[in-house]
Amino acid sequence: MLYFDNAATSHPKPEVTWKAMEHYLKHVGCNPGRGGYAGSIEAGKIIFAARERLKTLFNAPSEKQVIFTPNVTYALNFAIKGLLSPGDHVILSSMEHNSVVRPLRFMEKHCGVELSIVPCDRTGRLSPDDVRRVLRKNTKMVVLTHASNVTGTILPVEEIAAAVRETEAFFVLDTAQTAGVLSIDFQALGLDFLAFTGHKALYGPPGTGGFVVSERAAEGLIPLVQGGTGSKSDQEEQPDFLPDKFEAGTVNTVGIAGLGAGVQFVLDTGLAKIREHERNLTELFLTGIKEIPGVRVYGPEQMDERVATVSLTLNGADLGEVAARLEAEYGIMVRSGLHCSPLAHKTIGTFPTGTLRFSFGYFNTEEEVQTAVKALHTLARQYC
Amino acid sequence: MLYFDNAATSHPKPEVTWKAMEHYLKHVGCNPGRGGYAGSIEAGKIIFAARERLKTLFNAPSEKQVIFTPNVTYALNFAIKGLLSPGDHVILSSMEHNSVVRPLRFMEKHCGVELSIVPCDRTGRLSPDDVRRVLRKNTKMVVLTHASNVTGTILPVEEIAAAVRETEAFFVLDTAQTAGVLSIDFQALGLDFLAFTGHKALYGPPGTGGFVVSERAAEGLIPLVQGGTGSKSDQEEQPDFLPDKFEAGTVNTVGIAGLGAGVQFVLDTGLAKIREHERNLTELFLTGIKEIPGVRVYGPEQMDERVATVSLTLNGADLGEVAARLEAEYGIMVRSGLHCSPLAHKTIGTFPTGTLRFSFGYFNTEEEVQTAVKALHTLARQYC
Repeated sequence: MLYFDNAATSHPKPEVTWKAMEHYLKHVGCNPGRGGYAGSIEAGKIIFAARERLKTLFNAPSEKQVIFTPNVTYALNFAIKGLLSPGDHVILSSMEHNSVVRPLRFMEKHCGVELSIVPCDRTGRLSPDDVRRVLRKNTKMVVLTHASNVTGTILPVEEIAAAVRETEAFFVLDTAQTAGVLSIDFQALGLDFLAFTGHKALYGPPGTGGFVVSERAAEGLIPLVQGGTGSKSDQEEQPDFLPDKFEAGTVNTVGIAGLGAGVQFVLDTGLAKIREHERNLTELFLTGIKEIPGVRVYGPEQMDERVATVSLTLNGADLGEVAARLEAEYGIMVRSGLHCSPLAHKTIGTFPTGTLRFSFGYFNTEEEVQTAVKALHTLARQYC
Repeated sequence: MLYFDNAATSHPKPEVTWKAMEHYLKHVGCNPGRGGYAGSIEAGKIIFAARERLKTLFNAPSEKQVIFTPNVTYALNFAIKGLLSPGDHVILSSMEHNSVVRPLRFMEKHCGVELSIVPCDRTGRLSPDDVRRVLRKNTKMVVLTHASNVTGTILPVEEIAAAVRETEAFFVLDTAQTAGVLSIDFQALGLDFLAFTGHKALYGPPGTGGFVVSERAAEGLIPLVQGGTGSKSDQEEQPDFLPDKFEAGTVNTVGIAGLGAGVQFVLDTGLAKIREHERNLTELFLTGIKEIPGVRVYGPEQMDERVATVSLTLNGADLGEVAARLEAEYGIMVRSGLHCSPLAHKTIGTFPTGTLRFSFGYFNTEEEVQTAVKALHTLARQYC
């Protein structure tokens, strides 16, 4: 079986991920930050190590500004529900995932928040000038995906971050498709909120994710949940210090153990090497399928402008059927449809039927990609 | 090492728990409900199997009414934030954990919700009549722990549920200390919301939990988060059907695989056998420490009135020091302090210093408990 759905979740994980989880489950097993005994302290060290590695990866100001959530969707909901009030204006791009669009539509409908959706072009590109033009006095938040989960298009985050820094607005970056692949410097970009998923290119297990938050944003951010934190237990109100303010209840220590190992794998391997490999695979794929009659690829042609996620359509073909045939006849696992991003498909002109999506990861090989290219060549002939 | 902190998290887990997690990570690895390929479908089956077993355990009306959250604190926040509006009245007991008290204090302060805290007696007992007396026309919710995480006291849930059923109020039951030990029949009790943790007596890993919700409560319950669900992906709003309405973003498939195996372990072993074993350990412990001068035990003496969590104080001793000595000199892991339940300690008279808490689990043995009894005898002599 050839797995090309790394934009959904990375598979396989490096061996260190499971090893770390197994170690926790079999030999530690305790709750961090609750008891004072060795097992609890050891669990606390596992959590701290993961925070420290994420701090390094994202150049966060401190470990305590790294907060764990069950996935990136919860992280984005923390920002959207916790920072916005009635009358606030929010800017987003037309390439956003439903993890951003759905909570914002909710806030628009029920909480008097106003949205400006800045249109991207049909390759998913966003113009920083278009964002600048809609910035207003009451713009409270600019929320942007770092790269599209449909087309792989990288958005011009540096320029937009610079524009947002000149205002009072918070800049929220969704790195679900880029953390672990592209370099992201929280402090250099002057970000307020960096949402990350743990189970994609950070090679942690599902059930992990989180955010890095600036002191400025953390102060006004109302936590999505309150509960026991193992700290200030004499108080019936949530503590206001980090990370406890935003982490209520028992944390996912086994998952975070795996995530910490995954992030260490990324740090040890190096972003440059990971990016280079995924770039090569993507270029090989795009070059290989370029001449196939009836195949149309969405997203940028230039490798610098994209990550390893490729969306395509095949003239005259039902893409669900193509995906099913790729699996049945070639053992190739890809995903067809809207990929939880209806706005993005409206932008690139593939709504509502969607696209066939190939997304490569560090563990894919050139041989696997060549198999996919050959399979598409053969299949396409049967449709055109 | 002897582990007596099962009220915080159960340790060890049955072998099936981590075997199921290992199987998912190494041999499945895909996201459920997203792709149409075999790995994704297999992941979906793992999630469904866990829902099905929880439905059986709690006698829930349907699998789709079993919702997964990262822990029980999130589940309780779903109920509290999602069902309450300004002007609503909420009844809770004075034995509640901060997972209930903190979100309710937040709603009281910021959302115009009014609280009635019904006092329990000094063993943690709650009188159903006292609850009946504070029920009002605008009582929207009664939220109750099934058993105290401090004293182990079981609250009279059947009687109170019957009283609440005569009103329009929602009955929210926190089963963090009882799911997997006591029989809990969602339909017979007429519950609206049963919050459960996965990593205690259900023998799943940390990072798991959830709730069972009635159709009546689900309808009006505003989800705490919105995001991608892999369903209705053409829509920019959250789907309104179960379980998708309440499950946004990538679910913790590896954790839920472990939880499903843990619940199967409970079903296979049988609640009666588990309860009987934990009861025996608790009785052995309570009988063994009864005569120790200076030791005071909180919570009921009758085994029918309590679960396997025992809180005690030792005259003249700093309990943090006692816990540290138990670990250093006897390899015994217990927890001292407030256990995230300041209200409960105010109720039983141990605020703010707290108690020393022993909590037994199915994998503890009589020999281990006897070791603890002996250790307490020896230590107590040095303090009194």
